[in-house]
Amino acid sequence: MSIELYWGSGSTPAWRILLALAAKKLPFTSHLLSFSKRETRTPEFLALNPRGKVPTLKDGDLVINESLAILAYLDRAYPEVPLFGRTAAETGAVWRHVMEFESHGNPVIGAVARPILFGTLADDEAKVREGLPAVIAELDGLEKNVSDGFLVGGALSAADLVWFCGLQQLLRAATRPAAARLELGVWPMGARWPAIVRWAANIEALPGYDATIPPHWLEGDIPSPSRTS
Amino acid sequence: MSIELYWGSGSTPAWRILLALAAKKLPFTSHLLSFSKRETRTPEFLALNPRGKVPTLKDGDLVINESLAILAYLDRAYPEVPLFGRTAAETGAVWRHVMEFESHGNPVIGAVARPILFGTLADDEAKVREGLPAVIAELDGLEKNVSDGFLVGGALSAADLVWFCGLQQLLRAATRPAAARLELGVWPMGARWPAIVRWAANIEALPGYDATIPPHWLEGDIPSPSRTS
Repeated sequence: MSIELYWGSGSTPAWRILLALAAKKLPFTSHLLSFSKRETRTPEFLALNPRGKVPTLKDGDLVINESLAILAYLDRAYPEVPLFGRTAAETGAVWRHVMEFESHGNPVIGAVARPILFGTLADDEAKVREGLPAVIAELDGLEKNVSDGFLVGGALSAADLVWFCGLQQLLRAATRPAAARLELGVWPMGARWPAIVRWAANIEALPGYDATIPPHWLEGDIPSPSRTS
Repeated sequence: MSIELYWGSGSTPAWRILLALAAKKLPFTSHLLSFSKRETRTPEFLALNPRGKVPTLKDGDLVINESLAILAYLDRAYPEVPLFGRTAAETGAVWRHVMEFESHGNPVIGAVARPILFGTLADDEAKVREGLPAVIAELDGLEKNVSDGFLVGGALSAADLVWFCGLQQLLRAATRPAAARLELGVWPMGARWPAIVRWAANIEALPGYDATIPPHWLEGDIPSPSRTS
């Protein structure tokens, strides 16, 4: 076994894999690619992933693209600790939460977060404001779903990793200086979403968690979902 | 085991499940809901799926939403025939193709197909035309990927079902009367995409396939991807 991970700082799909590798205590060789230097567009990287996306995982000669495929692969190749449930019912529940994030959570979070993070707020401010109620509704749903500490079966799963990284993207955007005047009201989270705060702390307690934080975030204040101020 | 499926005619996510149940030869109780009669918005159905989406699957008391979660559940609960690979490498490859459809195939196909199918072509014709080259590129990629008859490991998998249903949505749109003057050039497929034609025939050869075709399509001409005229 020789795992190599190609990833980028701040990519939430890549962050999922860093967290999964930490949860499973799998050593790996890190290839941190720079988006600004277009290192996901080199011929060498495009040979691994023709779409030029991170994360990409190599395990020996095997190459896997798409973050959810990487999670599914890792869970089958390295079953402990299981990230897709211990029973068929749990497997269904984990994937349901994962796909609800992909189909519903991510689009509404992205509509608010991406204009802030990618500097298009001047053009898209009306859309950001329009999109906020849907984000609040997703957070209210998450609050109910994590009420017993994890999304499925009282244990960490891929569902937690996927929602956690999405939430991090939202909070990163909400606490950028450019977003201050928007008063999005999603951070700190404790007043409205105390169960999310406790749940996030469970994930942040993962051994090795700190090493998964996007490196360029470390230059500033990190608005962890579990911080209450 | 007592499987019930709530589905809608023409929903490609629902079609995936009908095909998976056929592939696994699992009997089930069919609940065909009418979108036009708003049967996905009744209190009874919203109790099963608060987002009001099909497909929803019940197995005994267990309720699973989101089509990919249903596929993952069925594969774990009823392992034969396996739809997510027989090895970790195959599992990774199946999910990669599934997620490439979700992330890349579905958005570009939807951008072309949905305005035609949902009657907004008058407003969106420019976008449909702009989106066509990306659809052609995805079909060219699929052509390479199915060159040995199936997407992964020479056997039917969830990857085939997901791409097949997406392709069906595209061809349904491309052969609607409203689309005729657009000359999208995606059907018949044989001239440019002969491997896709052979691959689609493999899926259509599944025992029970005919019963999975969206009922309202049966009223007209069905532009199967494997038909050459």
